[in-house]
Amino acid sequence: MVRTSPLPLTVGDLSEGELLDRILPRLAAGPSALLGPGDDAAVLAAPDGRVVVSTDTQTQNADFRLEWPNGYVHTGYDVGWKAAAQNLSDINAMGAVATGIVVSLTLPQATPVGWVEDLAKGLLDAVRSLGASRCALAGGDLGRGGELSVTATVLGSLEGRQPVLRSGAQAGDRLAVAGPLGSAAAGLALLEHGPAYEGLEPALRELVALQCRPVPPLEAGPAAANSGARALMDLSDGLLRDGLRLAAASGVRLDLDPDVLALHARTLKQAGELLGADPLEWVLGGGEDHGLLAAFPADAQLPHGFAAIGSVMPADGGEPGVSVGGKPAVTRGWDHFAK
Amino acid sequence: MVRTSPLPLTVGDLSEGELLDRILPRLAAGPSALLGPGDDAAVLAAPDGRVVVSTDTQTQNADFRLEWPNGYVHTGYDVGWKAAAQNLSDINAMGAVATGIVVSLTLPQATPVGWVEDLAKGLLDAVRSLGASRCALAGGDLGRGGELSVTATVLGSLEGRQPVLRSGAQAGDRLAVAGPLGSAAAGLALLEHGPAYEGLEPALRELVALQCRPVPPLEAGPAAANSGARALMDLSDGLLRDGLRLAAASGVRLDLDPDVLALHARTLKQAGELLGADPLEWVLGGGEDHGLLAAFPADAQLPHGFAAIGSVMPADGGEPGVSVGGKPAVTRGWDHFAK
Repeated sequence: MVRTSPLPLTVGDLSEGELLDRILPRLAAGPSALLGPGDDAAVLAAPDGRVVVSTDTQTQNADFRLEWPNGYVHTGYDVGWKAAAQNLSDINAMGAVATGIVVSLTLPQATPVGWVEDLAKGLLDAVRSLGASRCALAGGDLGRGGELSVTATVLGSLEGRQPVLRSGAQAGDRLAVAGPLGSAAAGLALLEHGPAYEGLEPALRELVALQCRPVPPLEAGPAAANSGARALMDLSDGLLRDGLRLAAASGVRLDLDPDVLALHARTLKQAGELLGADPLEWVLGGGEDHGLLAAFPADAQLPHGFAAIGSVMPADGGEPGVSVGGKPAVTRGWDHFAK
Repeated sequence: MVRTSPLPLTVGDLSEGELLDRILPRLAAGPSALLGPGDDAAVLAAPDGRVVVSTDTQTQNADFRLEWPNGYVHTGYDVGWKAAAQNLSDINAMGAVATGIVVSLTLPQATPVGWVEDLAKGLLDAVRSLGASRCALAGGDLGRGGELSVTATVLGSLEGRQPVLRSGAQAGDRLAVAGPLGSAAAGLALLEHGPAYEGLEPALRELVALQCRPVPPLEAGPAAANSGARALMDLSDGLLRDGLRLAAASGVRLDLDPDVLALHARTLKQAGELLGADPLEWVLGGGEDHGLLAAFPADAQLPHGFAAIGSVMPADGGEPGVSVGGKPAVTRGWDHFAK
């Protein structure tokens, strides 16, 4: 019998064990896994007697769409990559290196098995490509639900260093950024409001890629810690919003250099023109870049990957804040998130 | 103006920060938290240079209903308690003690804020009441979605011991169980098919409580490890199903004592009569008890909390399996899970 157009195998066709058998071989235990998947829990090395931990969830329609308005089909590979990347970024933002990831998947019965296999591949490729060479894919959990949801929890090692918190910035420090600013937001705008994905030229597709498969600069976190960074955080909710958090935790004002912001905006000029948007709004308000914001002592040399973006000032009248060229930063960027 | 019946405040009425402010004060950092919630990641102690990790998700309608057919209203407190309990059980099943939990919540906009506050309370109460005294509530993540979903990831310390795996059972070992067998399944049957919850007598409500707020015996795991247990696992999917996993990992047959099984079944007699069900099916096939199944050397004294339930035999013709009184165990219990 010839089946010319078989229906794709779905999650509902398999038992949990059968589905796991299709995913686990795609994952590889890293050098930090003392015990990998398959028992009640995994065991990871924590060589300096401490472990860093962070968790993050992506949910269908809230955090990604299976198909975007511009026609881009969001793949399992994208979801797996981003699950790894955004969690690895949180570990990076402590000045730590990742030692392991566990993943919990909630899957509707109709999810194609191939989509889930693709997710496992994206997860593994992100860990490898982003340079998290000590990170083990240590295990996870599978369950059924009405919508796709992926929670990754990543563990990390400080390698004997002190964690670099949001609260250590001091007036007089240099403010610096690693990674892009606004690219992921420009990519999101293209997905939501742009012309057909198929017709986009490569530079614009690259912005979509940075939204779907962010590239956190994983060497920059430990490098910042080793260079004496006094404060460090992941840029996941936009420069202004995250900057205000760092400013509040440190009791300071962050003053951003308008010329540097303009430089970042210029890299997004083409997307801005296409969409009739001001790229500066993406630079200041756009989330999900997963770069780093750091404060360094004024005399410190910025480590590889960081570029200056402003300076740390005393809080005006005790009120923490973010300013641009000395003027209070109140841009429409904020409205992307406000209720 | 008097508002006699105000609408409850929902998640959609608050920003993520405002919602976090209402949850975090309910959580308490434990002694293992070197850095608690509020930064990009938490830092926990890992005193013996290793960390045990496990993750598990509960999703609305797949793992719990907000209101059950018998009228029982599942509370945020129940969901929080169970999120902690089922993850703590996985750490227990390695012979470890919990050092920290991180939680990722996915919430529909219409979720009452009180429900989420209640979840935080249930999580904290479970950690305290179950005796996880070193466990910190270290942080988490909030997001929006179409259905309620809670993923907890728990970390643990082996306190210098070797993890007790599923694979160490040897022919001749004594098989023992800690915790109840079938109670959670009987509770589930009452929720799904029983008479109105309001009319249930206390002993039957207790079964419902064990389904909604399981009580893993958290001292039994480390005690088993200290008593030389050769294999150990969490009973989350039922004695036969989990027993077969242990048997397969160890390459043995587990032989269960029918008299002990009958004793367990007798404790569920009232529920069985009410529902016209055979309690032995709950004992053999029912999940979510979150007790422990262990294999001890024949001459070992069973630690407090464990009771003998059978013995470990050579695998018949090399084929691992589970038998009851020497006869292959094929009961309808399996069908609760089969497709």
